[in-house]
Amino acid sequence: MDPFSFLQPGKAAIFKDRFVTKVNETVIPYEEGITGDTGLIGLPFSKFSISLSQASEAPQAIRSCMSLYSTFSAERNKDYRNHKILDFGDVMTHPTSLPESLKRLYISVKEMIETNSCSRYILLGGDHGISYPSIRAFSENFGTIGIIQFDAHHDVRNLEDGGRTNGTPFRSLIEEGVVEGENLVQIGIRDFSNAEAYSDYAQEKRLSIYTMGDIERSGIIPIVEKEGDRLAEKVDVIYLSLDMDAVDQAFAPGCPAIGPGGLTSRELLSAVSAAAKHEKVRAMDIVEIDPSKDFRDMTSRLAVHAMMRFMYQ
Amino acid sequence: MDPFSFLQPGKAAIFKDRFVTKVNETVIPYEEGITGDTGLIGLPFSKFSISLSQASEAPQAIRSCMSLYSTFSAERNKDYRNHKILDFGDVMTHPTSLPESLKRLYISVKEMIETNSCSRYILLGGDHGISYPSIRAFSENFGTIGIIQFDAHHDVRNLEDGGRTNGTPFRSLIEEGVVEGENLVQIGIRDFSNAEAYSDYAQEKRLSIYTMGDIERSGIIPIVEKEGDRLAEKVDVIYLSLDMDAVDQAFAPGCPAIGPGGLTSRELLSAVSAAAKHEKVRAMDIVEIDPSKDFRDMTSRLAVHAMMRFMYQ
Amino acid sequence: MDPFSFLQPGKAAIFKDRFVTKVNETVIPYEEGITGDTGLIGLPFSKFSISLSQASEAPQAIRSCMSLYSTFSAERNKDYRNHKILDFGDVMTHPTSLPESLKRLYISVKEMIETNSCSRYILLGGDHGISYPSIRAFSENFGTIGIIQFDAHHDVRNLEDGGRTNGTPFRSLIEEGVVEGENLVQIGIRDFSNAEAYSDYAQEKRLSIYTMGDIERSGIIPIVEKEGDRLAEKVDVIYLSLDMDAVDQAFAPGCPAIGPGGLTSRELLSAVSAAAKHEKVRAMDIVEIDPSKDFRDMTSRLAVHAMMRFMYQ
Amino acid sequence: MDPFSFLQPGKAAIFKDRFVTKVNETVIPYEEGITGDTGLIGLPFSKFSISLSQASEAPQAIRSCMSLYSTFSAERNKDYRNHKILDFGDVMTHPTSLPESLKRLYISVKEMIETNSCSRYILLGGDHGISYPSIRAFSENFGTIGIIQFDAHHDVRNLEDGGRTNGTPFRSLIEEGVVEGENLVQIGIRDFSNAEAYSDYAQEKRLSIYTMGDIERSGIIPIVEKEGDRLAEKVDVIYLSLDMDAVDQAFAPGCPAIGPGGLTSRELLSAVSAAAKHEKVRAMDIVEIDPSKDFRDMTSRLAVHAMMRFMYQ
Amino acid sequence: MDPFSFLQPGKAAIFKDRFVTKVNETVIPYEEGITGDTGLIGLPFSKFSISLSQASEAPQAIRSCMSLYSTFSAERNKDYRNHKILDFGDVMTHPTSLPESLKRLYISVKEMIETNSCSRYILLGGDHGISYPSIRAFSENFGTIGIIQFDAHHDVRNLEDGGRTNGTPFRSLIEEGVVEGENLVQIGIRDFSNAEAYSDYAQEKRLSIYTMGDIERSGIIPIVEKEGDRLAEKVDVIYLSLDMDAVDQAFAPGCPAIGPGGLTSRELLSAVSAAAKHEKVRAMDIVEIDPSKDFRDMTSRLAVHAMMRFMYQ
Amino acid sequence: MDPFSFLQPGKAAIFKDRFVTKVNETVIPYEEGITGDTGLIGLPFSKFSISLSQASEAPQAIRSCMSLYSTFSAERNKDYRNHKILDFGDVMTHPTSLPESLKRLYISVKEMIETNSCSRYILLGGDHGISYPSIRAFSENFGTIGIIQFDAHHDVRNLEDGGRTNGTPFRSLIEEGVVEGENLVQIGIRDFSNAEAYSDYAQEKRLSIYTMGDIERSGIIPIVEKEGDRLAEKVDVIYLSLDMDAVDQAFAPGCPAIGPGGLTSRELLSAVSAAAKHEKVRAMDIVEIDPSKDFRDMTSRLAVHAMMRFMYQ
Ligand SMILES: [Ca+2]
Ligand SMILES: [Ca+2]
Ligand SMILES: [Ca+2]
Ligand SMILES: [Ca+2]
Ligand SMILES: [Ca+2]
Ligand SMILES: [Ca+2]
Ligand SMILES: [Ca+2]
Ligand SMILES: [Ca+2]
Ligand SMILES: [Ca+2]
Ligand SMILES: [Ca+2]
Ligand SMILES: [Ca+2]
Ligand SMILES: [Ca+2]
Repeated sequence: MDPFSFLQPGKAAIFKDRFVTKVNETVIPYEEGITGDTGLIGLPFSKFSISLSQASEAPQAIRSCMSLYSTFSAERNKDYRNHKILDFGDVMTHPTSLPESLKRLYISVKEMIETNSCSRYILLGGDHGISYPSIRAFSENFGTIGIIQFDAHHDVRNLEDGGRTNGTPFRSLIEEGVVEGENLVQIGIRDFSNAEAYSDYAQEKRLSIYTMGDIERSGIIPIVEKEGDRLAEKVDVIYLSLDMDAVDQAFAPGCPAIGPGGLTSRELLSAVSAAAKHEKVRAMDIVEIDPSKDFRDMTSRLAVHAMMRFMYQ
Repeated sequence: MDPFSFLQPGKAAIFKDRFVTKVNETVIPYEEGITGDTGLIGLPFSKFSISLSQASEAPQAIRSCMSLYSTFSAERNKDYRNHKILDFGDVMTHPTSLPESLKRLYISVKEMIETNSCSRYILLGGDHGISYPSIRAFSENFGTIGIIQFDAHHDVRNLEDGGRTNGTPFRSLIEEGVVEGENLVQIGIRDFSNAEAYSDYAQEKRLSIYTMGDIERSGIIPIVEKEGDRLAEKVDVIYLSLDMDAVDQAFAPGCPAIGPGGLTSRELLSAVSAAAKHEKVRAMDIVEIDPSKDFRDMTSRLAVHAMMRFMYQ
Repeated sequence: MDPFSFLQPGKAAIFKDRFVTKVNETVIPYEEGITGDTGLIGLPFSKFSISLSQASEAPQAIRSCMSLYSTFSAERNKDYRNHKILDFGDVMTHPTSLPESLKRLYISVKEMIETNSCSRYILLGGDHGISYPSIRAFSENFGTIGIIQFDAHHDVRNLEDGGRTNGTPFRSLIEEGVVEGENLVQIGIRDFSNAEAYSDYAQEKRLSIYTMGDIERSGIIPIVEKEGDRLAEKVDVIYLSLDMDAVDQAFAPGCPAIGPGGLTSRELLSAVSAAAKHEKVRAMDIVEIDPSKDFRDMTSRLAVHAMMRFMYQ
Repeated sequence: MDPFSFLQPGKAAIFKDRFVTKVNETVIPYEEGITGDTGLIGLPFSKFSISLSQASEAPQAIRSCMSLYSTFSAERNKDYRNHKILDFGDVMTHPTSLPESLKRLYISVKEMIETNSCSRYILLGGDHGISYPSIRAFSENFGTIGIIQFDAHHDVRNLEDGGRTNGTPFRSLIEEGVVEGENLVQIGIRDFSNAEAYSDYAQEKRLSIYTMGDIERSGIIPIVEKEGDRLAEKVDVIYLSLDMDAVDQAFAPGCPAIGPGGLTSRELLSAVSAAAKHEKVRAMDIVEIDPSKDFRDMTSRLAVHAMMRFMYQ
Repeated sequence: MDPFSFLQPGKAAIFKDRFVTKVNETVIPYEEGITGDTGLIGLPFSKFSISLSQASEAPQAIRSCMSLYSTFSAERNKDYRNHKILDFGDVMTHPTSLPESLKRLYISVKEMIETNSCSRYILLGGDHGISYPSIRAFSENFGTIGIIQFDAHHDVRNLEDGGRTNGTPFRSLIEEGVVEGENLVQIGIRDFSNAEAYSDYAQEKRLSIYTMGDIERSGIIPIVEKEGDRLAEKVDVIYLSLDMDAVDQAFAPGCPAIGPGGLTSRELLSAVSAAAKHEKVRAMDIVEIDPSKDFRDMTSRLAVHAMMRFMYQ
Repeated sequence: MDPFSFLQPGKAAIFKDRFVTKVNETVIPYEEGITGDTGLIGLPFSKFSISLSQASEAPQAIRSCMSLYSTFSAERNKDYRNHKILDFGDVMTHPTSLPESLKRLYISVKEMIETNSCSRYILLGGDHGISYPSIRAFSENFGTIGIIQFDAHHDVRNLEDGGRTNGTPFRSLIEEGVVEGENLVQIGIRDFSNAEAYSDYAQEKRLSIYTMGDIERSGIIPIVEKEGDRLAEKVDVIYLSLDMDAVDQAFAPGCPAIGPGGLTSRELLSAVSAAAKHEKVRAMDIVEIDPSKDFRDMTSRLAVHAMMRFMYQ
């Protein structure tokens, strides 16, 4: 029998409307043997960043914004309250050894996938450096991989000048043969935010590149649909990598590398919906949110909406 | 004779260009017997809010932003300097008794209407809970009422879980017969911001619901015009209820329940213009601005522009 | 066997030095039958406040600051890692009914005391209005009560003008005979922050009043020691009520009613140490911290230090 | 008869405890013929500042903080609710002509003094440049003037490099013979915040200089009392000039030129009390508060306490 | 030989990717005799502003944002790393004499132009008052001048009420015959942000005016192209004047006079590209950014993108 | 001949009073062969921090605050304008390899010392991890080393749990024999901010420990003087290590690990003066300032004052 009338020991008091299911209420910690719909893991690491970034705090910021929205889609008139999210927790990285941290991120994503518990996974960075171990793990488990990356930047910097930074993950993946260049789609590339050498590299490796100008001209949905269809025919698994700085600074003010002329929040959300339609899509990471630079967690709130567009099909 | 050269006792010094009329200069405190064009009242109450909100400070924040804009419409090449705004002041609510405060809000709106001094009224909340007493008063004085509500949320929560909160006003109005469900239009309903039970309730009560998806597809002006025309044929009076969280967080960062994927400021302003065209429109409330959460009063500035679109026809 | 190498499902990753015990690690949720040293309860309610306050968020802010400090006292060369804190959680108050919320606060404190599980209790407000139900509960269980209140204000306002606000708790307690005036000690009373009528009331009821001038002249420790000794002889139980606005705005910038000329953080902490020495002290509440107004949780950090001074004897 | 139950047209609603008098309630706009105790004038000008400063907004910020404190002194057990403050308003300065603005400030202070309506005056800057016209006006009306200046800086810069800036007022006053060097007392002079040439100038002109080191050694009250007595014997009128940057940045974070190692708020307030005791003190200005740089109006709150210490004798 | 391995005396350490050229790396201080592509000058003055503005800090804020973006245009697949920017530094204005400052701004722009070192110039304000001396200088050197002004405001206020403020530059230029009214194009004029008298003046002087409504209807690029072509036939030189408050407050939150309903960042950038295409364009000023009011230098970042659109043809 | 009247190409315009020397004006970049009084180096590295810290930005923040204060000591009536500061610049660390960065810090400090150009050195962190390579370099060049560390924390954590973090430098130095435990003085140790195991370690290694309680009892100057004298007799060189979190959060709000109950700014500054008196003192580092968390650079301003107390003897 409950000893208290209005207390739940160890718990904060949160008002509950009996008819509303908040997204966070559908999250349960993973336990051996159980299955769910979407697996959720935090990769709270941002020491790959060239400029110091607190993107490592994003997994907790995003999780806490999950209590602000509900499981009901007004657009589809459908409630996803039975969509089960399994939370694998956050990877314990190493305070001072980057190689060790890299290894831990890779192992943890792999261990998560190998539970075979969910059909899709969401990975919360961290800076973009986390995509390298994550995509490597997905590719090893699922076969040929295709990537749709939303980003203002190519992220194919050379590795000599600074080692494995948040500017290099896709270079590493290509060089190590984890992904074929032509299976990497980059959407949202921004003027004056990249270098000629890396643009040349991207072309040489036959990446599919879409700038903001391309998006203004043809709309983002046709681009995503076309590339999704193309990849779906060629690869075993599609991985979405969502660098929030693809979005304009007015709509995502909490990214380390903000700038004008980017996507609106509506464009981003409809693009994620379009991309997530393909069955071969098994994972999405969300990276480059630094909650300490954000305003009222706007960028984390946008991330939660992107998650819902991804999960709820 | 004025004893001072550059002083006006008790007054702040504000630079005045003789050819510019600021909106606040057209405001005069109501006095018995005088008439004006638009009546203005502050309903500074937000203890209906589930999460503590300082929306009660919005009437003063909005009023002070009225000094930032002028009465001249460049679009219509017309100056509204002779449009008289009568200010009824702010309702003195009770610090700790909500039922008493509710009563005071109701009585005050009623007393204002009964002065018969203006053709239209603007009511500045406060949280959305203030629309319940306000709409009740309008309906009692003017007859069958139609409502166009701009909002990300239905606001038809059950009353059992928390009493009369800022999530319940339209439920209360429907249940008590103040408004017919089919005379309530909700525009801007957002994905993952409502509950299935309340969406069902809205449908069952035959509300007219327009989601952000509807707006993306057909544009907001055709929706507002169609519904304005429909209501104008059926009701005696149309009341606009403007919950600022219908607007995207990038454009209205000062609402308690912000999120991505909402209206732009241009969409909101043109929608208010379109809605205000109908002669039967007699009132507009503006709610859910918490100045303590805003950035540079952006949301209050937007509210003032909405007021001008409403007043100046 | 643990299925993961670096993951704990459902948990955030926090670096752990094996030799450091953080205060939060000594907290365990209360369960029937267990005992501990200090009981902790959150009273997250601030709708008693005359000006809207988000002090209701303080229990969570303070709890989260408990992870920033350790159990080891360098001054006494003693580690309190075995001092067990039982967390009773936060009281679920009612969103719109103040009388109901008041009742729930009272019942919850009472239910906590009646577990007989701890020798001392810490109650985290909320605004100062929470002291009324809390002190009433303590007095009913423990007998004649003495109160040492640290506060810039008397908090003996009349009840007619606004009902039971955060300015009235001690008036209510005196009027209802819960505490004798002469058993109420007020320390830190500030110039130009009170009213003559309430000062007269305090004198008439024979409260012991110490202004900041008194503290400058004689030091705060002798005052606390003298009054602690005096009360200890007369009452069955001593209750400390710590309104953080007794502290200067430079040291406690997150209180709703900040001002200059108050206590330094060192004065406050040594005063709490001195007051807590008396065995009859059974409880301390900490009130009037509004985390939304604070800078880097400074005021909540100070609250945690006050808690440690109180608990660790 | 009042037409409304809970409305006062044109007014904000502010909770009123019938037994409390807030300082702002004792302020009345000056009208010809009336008399009061303290005259209040705003000198909202800061274009004298070398670095752009918004100190011109301080008069309104300080005035609005007057509603936060009451007229009752707990230290003296005395209520000053009958102390009448006459508000002369803010001087309308010129947007682009500094010589014209200087003239207007001078004329306005003079016109205020010549009303003969009050025994003391408080002048709210603005930057320190406003003291030059103000002191000139006082000296012309009252005779030989003595000045006690609380400041981290000498403010006796040369006029060649930048004209009449906020760094030159006391140089100008000395050079023009408005004040004798030996009748100028400077308290709070800070290390590494002045120049040798100006220190030499101050010594040559026989100013009385007290550094923070002097204050640490002997306490601020003995210094103020000694110099107040000395001046009182020599001059006709004493003018206090309170540059808030004499206070440490922790206690007055809103000054343009903040720094560590300054006065505490308690030191400042007791010093103002000590200085204001002398009957010949007729005026105090408060300068160098830039509300746009402040945190929660802390520095304006401190200014209001300084005003109360000055007015209420 | 370099004495240090990882130090460059007097320099900050900034990570350098050998393949990336940041815009700031293409800037070199002007020296006599050298030539470049774009000349850059800072006009750090904002004492023309009616409300105190710190727009004088914008030249340094914008310059520092130049290190955040690269010289490579992804849209045109072209790197502008060889486009040389000559930096003429910031004009040393006078702290207290506005006429002297005005003269210095004029002389400095003139001296810069007379070096004949660059084909185009960028002038960084300051408030809009700096356009008056700047345009005067350009007109004297280059002949008949045409102006494309992006602005929410006409800036043709009368000079009697406040002298030469940031609201008068274009009035002055017209009155003094520096520019013909019909050669002045104003784009982005906003509702309720101007006065009838000034709108009448603009019409009478035959300015080309485009409101936000015009832009919504026809798109901004056709407008800019049409007016650019028209001017190119009539004038010797075209000067772009970019008041950042033409942009919506969501995209340019750091302007003194922000408001809703303005341009998006994409609209602005494509408009600058379109305007800069004309060969007769020789100069662009960027004004009305107050970095102290901005969020994460968003508005300065947008200014840098506008600069790149202007320079890189 | 200077081609411009009011421009200095490539330079910002800063108002200059001919009689004032700002500290930054006495700084010159080191060049081979020149000598000076104090050497200055930036060690902008904070990836040793357990919680992500932007302390790496402190060297530039502190340097920029050097322009806010002058070289004249009012307390000693002495101008230090001829005291030459040689700036060695900031060490270029490696973005992702900590061992490489550690090596670079060590080599750079060593290279600086070996120039033999100055009698004293100031090293600007960075987090406290930079003291390890720095002290190692000093000890190798100057012989037996004594350290006076101002800190709330012992910083002798074990190296197993996280490698070489900002919590381990003094452990490493002791373990590797760089410093004898009895030659390490720790002042400002705070209650509940350390662990018993590390306190035991400190005692076992015979460190001299002074808590805040010790400082309250005896004053900080006697402690510093006694320990300075003791070390001076035993060691060849004394190194001051100033962790700004020894200071109370009200006076140094920009440290990562802030808390109440610490030193005031006056206590810190007088302690640095006392410590710097000893001739054997050759170096001081200043660490743990994270400018992104600070308020108005208060903590960097305090750091500059500490530097001046150290340099100007
Ligand atoms: Ca990226
Ligand atoms: Ca990116
Ligand atoms: Ca609503
Ligand atoms: Ca809503
Ligand atoms: Ca209280
Ligand atoms: Ca209080
Ligand atoms: Ca001064
Ligand atoms: Ca000063
Ligand atoms: Ca303009
Ligand atoms: Ca403008
Ligand atoms: Ca340390
Ligand atoms: Ca420390």
